[in-house]
Amino acid sequence: MNFDITILGCGAATPTKRHRPTAQIVSIRDHLFLVDCGEGTQMQLRDLSIKMQRISHILISHLHGDHFYGLIGLLSTYALLGRTKELMIIGPKELEPWILNTLKVSSSYLTYPLLFSPTSENENAVIWENDWLSIHSIPLKHRVQCNGFLFQEKSHERKLIKWMVKEFKIGIEESIALKKNQVIKRASGEIFDPNDVCEPIIQPRSYFFCTDTLPLTFDYTALQNIDLLYHESTFLEEHTQRAKATFHSTAKQAAQVALNLRAKALILGHFSARYPHLEDFVLEAKSIFPCTTLAEEGKTWSIPLRFGKESV
Amino acid sequence: MNFDITILGCGAATPTKRHRPTAQIVSIRDHLFLVDCGEGTQMQLRDLSIKMQRISHILISHLHGDHFYGLIGLLSTYALLGRTKELMIIGPKELEPWILNTLKVSSSYLTYPLLFSPTSENENAVIWENDWLSIHSIPLKHRVQCNGFLFQEKSHERKLIKWMVKEFKIGIEESIALKKNQVIKRASGEIFDPNDVCEPIIQPRSYFFCTDTLPLTFDYTALQNIDLLYHESTFLEEHTQRAKATFHSTAKQAAQVALNLRAKALILGHFSARYPHLEDFVLEAKSIFPCTTLAEEGKTWSIPLRFGKESV
Repeated sequence: MNFDITILGCGAATPTKRHRPTAQIVSIRDHLFLVDCGEGTQMQLRDLSIKMQRISHILISHLHGDHFYGLIGLLSTYALLGRTKELMIIGPKELEPWILNTLKVSSSYLTYPLLFSPTSENENAVIWENDWLSIHSIPLKHRVQCNGFLFQEKSHERKLIKWMVKEFKIGIEESIALKKNQVIKRASGEIFDPNDVCEPIIQPRSYFFCTDTLPLTFDYTALQNIDLLYHESTFLEEHTQRAKATFHSTAKQAAQVALNLRAKALILGHFSARYPHLEDFVLEAKSIFPCTTLAEEGKTWSIPLRFGKESV
Repeated sequence: MNFDITILGCGAATPTKRHRPTAQIVSIRDHLFLVDCGEGTQMQLRDLSIKMQRISHILISHLHGDHFYGLIGLLSTYALLGRTKELMIIGPKELEPWILNTLKVSSSYLTYPLLFSPTSENENAVIWENDWLSIHSIPLKHRVQCNGFLFQEKSHERKLIKWMVKEFKIGIEESIALKKNQVIKRASGEIFDPNDVCEPIIQPRSYFFCTDTLPLTFDYTALQNIDLLYHESTFLEEHTQRAKATFHSTAKQAAQVALNLRAKALILGHFSARYPHLEDFVLEAKSIFPCTTLAEEGKTWSIPLRFGKESV
């Protein structure tokens, strides 16, 4: 039941010795999603021994080179390795014809089904979901169409503990009520609290990948109280005007977004190559949002399972 | 007066932890040429502290991804860094429209003149030259149009040593004869050997980049007696059939090409990811051509200046 984010690259547009362009693996319950795919992503996957064949979906925030120039190399490598498993690409609609043209120019032939799902530049949308997870695409404000991605576990009805059902002879109607978190009072006087006869509630976890963008006020309830926010902080406060002009954010602005969203933790990333050291990013952000850390290539953040009894 | 080859990548189609895709810097008299540009080339340039802005020409052998997928990232980075110096790209003609389209898709705008010079798939041609160097494009035999590149220093007429001209009162007609390597006999009985009154002859140096290809017999005099040959050796002898089927060479075949060309030294490269160790490549090649070494990321080969008195 893991929920991990591994940073493959957290630099801004020009790569440096310290940072690679944007890419990260979001691994939820052992399903692997690749979010953005800057140049060199496939090498980072190799270097970090991440099983790249297990990636089922690639999400591309926007079509600036530092977020997708590594995509075509990865797709070609999959073909050379004989991949047969379907791969879904989610991103701006211009991505599909570019990929198909580039494969043609480089005489590459895929060995696996490649599906495309375009993102919307205007509205929040669920772009993919299964029984236990939904991924929302959320428009950001950048120089070109750009989307953030919210990974949100789903809530489920409560599960009764089997031996208790048998022991206390809990009937179907009683089960339904207990799963809906209702207390049962029998005519005999027996009382069953769902917190006593149900498995613990597992709180749904959530992660919001938010780059590149101006700092935004998100009027979207699904984004409130997220467990983890990755927000771009291309610049420090001294370059606020530059950030505004280039549709980016500062570390302080990212921290303010985390505060507004009541996020539990913040990772700063997408650092401009102009800064030789990053200490000031975390200092500036912590003055507003204390639970801030800096992204770093090869580092993994895990969102732990949280159990909780719900008030009835 | 340097003549250096620095390997940025010498792996075959799928990158591994050990090898990056093909790219190398040919630095001659401090002019930098980038030959092939697989994914991650700009990171390798950064990591090896090579002054990437000094690259004036990029030569692309062929349009398989492992030889050019890094090009667009490098071109974009140049623009982000505000390059103004002209850049010439030499490669198959399909490269130009692909680059222009990709720049458009990724909203990248260049800050410098980008020139294209297409290679011929049929004939040897001088694709660039200046006073002291010529670069020849030489068709290879691969699944798609593919060209090798010969870097050849030019021969110059001999230079007289100034103080000797004065001391011995060497006249204009005598000078012309001496520069043409002719011995002068004066009526007085004095004899002037060009090797005594001219600067030492500097032997023109040459380097042939030859990948990807079946092993070929090159019927081209400029290729004879080259100083250094980089030849692909994707496979070992046990996979000769596989090499033939995929239009590649084995280490032994590369060595035979070096022998046929009377090359002075051979670098093997473009190693398939299937081989965990490379010792057998050098063993197999050395059985035919002893002066063989293995390419390695970050390693530089230098062709030294060779002086010599010419027979008169």
